[in-house]
Amino acid sequence: MDKIEHIGIAVKSLDEAIPAYEKLMQAVCYKIEEVVSEHVRTAFLAAGPNKIELLESTTSDGVIARYIERKGEGLHHIAFAVQDIVSEMDRLLQSGFTLLNDKPKKGADGKLVCFVHPKQTHGVLTELCMDDPDA
Amino acid sequence: MDKIEHIGIAVKSLDEAIPAYEKLMQAVCYKIEEVVSEHVRTAFLAAGPNKIELLESTTSDGVIARYIERKGEGLHHIAFAVQDIVSEMDRLLQSGFTLLNDKPKKGADGKLVCFVHPKQTHGVLTELCMDDPDA
Repeated sequence: MDKIEHIGIAVKSLDEAIPAYEKLMQAVCYKIEEVVSEHVRTAFLAAGPNKIELLESTTSDGVIARYIERKGEGLHHIAFAVQDIVSEMDRLLQSGFTLLNDKPKKGADGKLVCFVHPKQTHGVLTELCMDDPDA
Repeated sequence: MDKIEHIGIAVKSLDEAIPAYEKLMQAVCYKIEEVVSEHVRTAFLAAGPNKIELLESTTSDGVIARYIERKGEGLHHIAFAVQDIVSEMDRLLQSGFTLLNDKPKKGADGKLVCFVHPKQTHGVLTELCMDDPDA
């Protein structure tokens, strides 16, 4: 993996979380973007080569809303940058990991993404991401 | 914050988690280190400028053991690299954050560290870390 691309954090309200993270990180939220297919609104802040992605559910039964109900607000997933997402997906499948999508899909912030099931990563929902050439 | 220095992941067993993360990340665990004061054994893997820190409790009632009992294995904390930990601690205190230690303390992998309470960071235990000049 090239680097940690971002860390996803589940929050109840972007309106409350963005100013808190801007203060914490001394950084400005540079983008707010809705990912309709995932029922989330995302907000990004940079820390050098890495990002924080704040995630707010747009529906009461979306994946982030259900996560917060079960575990509370907090760290949700880790995303690694990869150079070739298709070959990384192949490699992980052959290494016994379970992928949550069989093809890369469009994520936030101009990325193609794929999620790895947490059961083989000791409870950590893991994302692969690569710049989307069509974004 | 300069970058995400590392992500801490609470695991039951380093013996099981290290080979899983070596496969996931195609990286070699470059250091295993016990932090006696924190009752943890830590294992590090690099991803470009960032690291993964796997955390195993050395006692049945240590902070990591209790975390796993409550929430299961998974993402435990995020650590940001800072250039001057003392001035960052001052800045965060003045911005209303609660620090879990009043002076930097020695962490794993040659760092001076300070933890920020998750109550003002939407559930995320946050660590500041800086290279320890005496390490």
